[in-house]
Amino acid sequence: MRAITIAEPGGPERLVWAEVPDPAVGPGEVLIEVAATAVNRADILQRMGFYTPPPGASHYPGLECSGRIAEVGAGVTGFVPGDEVCALLAGGGYAQRVAVPAGQVAPLPKGLSMTEAGGLMETVCTVWSNVFLLAGLSAGDTFLVHGGSSGIGTTAVQLAHQLGARVVVTAGSAAKLQACRDLGADVLVNYREEDFVERVREATDGRGVDVILDNMGAAYLDRNVQALAVGGRLMIIGLQGGVKGEVNLGTLLTKRASVTATTLRARPTEEKAEIVAAARDAVWPLIEAGRFRVVVDRVLPVEAAAEAHRIVEDSGHVGKVLLDVAAAGGG
Amino acid sequence: MRAITIAEPGGPERLVWAEVPDPAVGPGEVLIEVAATAVNRADILQRMGFYTPPPGASHYPGLECSGRIAEVGAGVTGFVPGDEVCALLAGGGYAQRVAVPAGQVAPLPKGLSMTEAGGLMETVCTVWSNVFLLAGLSAGDTFLVHGGSSGIGTTAVQLAHQLGARVVVTAGSAAKLQACRDLGADVLVNYREEDFVERVREATDGRGVDVILDNMGAAYLDRNVQALAVGGRLMIIGLQGGVKGEVNLGTLLTKRASVTATTLRARPTEEKAEIVAAARDAVWPLIEAGRFRVVVDRVLPVEAAAEAHRIVEDSGHVGKVLLDVAAAGGG
Repeated sequence: MRAITIAEPGGPERLVWAEVPDPAVGPGEVLIEVAATAVNRADILQRMGFYTPPPGASHYPGLECSGRIAEVGAGVTGFVPGDEVCALLAGGGYAQRVAVPAGQVAPLPKGLSMTEAGGLMETVCTVWSNVFLLAGLSAGDTFLVHGGSSGIGTTAVQLAHQLGARVVVTAGSAAKLQACRDLGADVLVNYREEDFVERVREATDGRGVDVILDNMGAAYLDRNVQALAVGGRLMIIGLQGGVKGEVNLGTLLTKRASVTATTLRARPTEEKAEIVAAARDAVWPLIEAGRFRVVVDRVLPVEAAAEAHRIVEDSGHVGKVLLDVAAAGGG
Repeated sequence: MRAITIAEPGGPERLVWAEVPDPAVGPGEVLIEVAATAVNRADILQRMGFYTPPPGASHYPGLECSGRIAEVGAGVTGFVPGDEVCALLAGGGYAQRVAVPAGQVAPLPKGLSMTEAGGLMETVCTVWSNVFLLAGLSAGDTFLVHGGSSGIGTTAVQLAHQLGARVVVTAGSAAKLQACRDLGADVLVNYREEDFVERVREATDGRGVDVILDNMGAAYLDRNVQALAVGGRLMIIGLQGGVKGEVNLGTLLTKRASVTATTLRARPTEEKAEIVAAARDAVWPLIEAGRFRVVVDRVLPVEAAAEAHRIVEDSGHVGKVLLDVAAAGGG
């Protein structure tokens, strides 16, 4: 088969579509003939050499895919060859075939194209596990998501809005904020022009927000804590603003608040399967009812992964940048 | 009645046993004729002017007491005058009578004297809510508590040990560590001579601890995060080592760990009632089976509250410093 390989860490030009051995299908796994995948920030860190895949994971990038079951490993029930599916991967989505534990695979939801579904699983599982399973966002709560127009952001805005939360977003342009508004965001904050802590204070009568989903890490740590309500939960899933942050623990204590940082990729297979099952139960009905969609910025051929990485690195996109694998040659 | 009053913030000498008006008993409250109370760090902060009592709370210090029900307010069921009880207070324990919502009152457990029970509720409810309800410490987990010989520490060591966790403690002397050992601690760390992160690493084969109960705040923040296992929970309940702390969010992220800071005193009445009920269900059977006790450093008359504060401020004590109110004159 062919896959995007990274011979040496570096810039986007290091991503080379090359002939590689097919993956082996272990017990409990399925082999997926990949139709589409998508770019996530972790892929860029991996390309740069800052994110070693967890033990046992494919060394090719790609944390999600859609496609068809090509082969079923020993002990797997519930899937047969030909099934249309999407999957949460520990790596290897930028390839024509990928082996994945069956618990991380879900049927293609009705209402999404095979290509769109290639950008569904990583963001849905990340948002579902952090915002709903861990932080327990409920109807009537107020939710703040930074980078509201990103792949994670557009997923989080839609899910929080559809499940009855009030949604505050930050983004860096009027066009991005409008995209968030169209998905259900209630309060729009242009972080280049406004202080989100001040805007949150105004919008909540000084109360603060119940849950924050943050990708900025150190740069926003103290301000995020300031923006929390009593009992608030700050969920950090990215460190784009740095690693070492200062926090006022007196503020945290007074608010009886918590700071949690997580990654999805390194979780054990069983935990991922629980998250996939929970996300499927909650989100597939919303998709089928037309209340949730994958916001697609554009679709590029997988051979153009370098260009796709440049687009995401420049942060000019809204939603997901997808890679079409089905149309790729060779293999 | 008489109570310990604080005319002006300052040193222990500001604590004056003086004639004051009796408290009124509101609907849903009971009036307790106080037998004993105990010194908590929050009392010292309050005396210094750093801890304003929450709205509606008594302005006299004292977060816990034992005694007898003297009067029952409208709508209260389950208590009658004469009942022997202990209570979690938002303030007012250093007094001959205190009014408290009935949900924060529990019957005196069999196996404790009335005086001992005066130092039971604040520490038991703090430990139970943080270590068990919020952080979910389970049998087989490893638990680290700083200041293992304090009132909170001796409570946490016993409960974690009795419920099947492995217990690591820090303390500042061999005698204090021996006291922790006698209560069930498995790993003893003299923080004046040893690095607790290193000792935790050795004791857990590099795995780290599942839950930490911390009273040091900023001074230990980064090292506490280093000492956590994957999925670990750091619970901060005191800031004796400062307020503004730096933390490596990369470490937190890699460990999928959380930092939570809480206080018990400011929680709403309903939440306190839930905590008291849960603690009573869990801890009263242990007390009655002889598996948990209030570790008493000494008992002083309430008129000697100033001396009791000096003892706790010097950190020479092991367990609780109790104040005998029943024997006090006047009122």
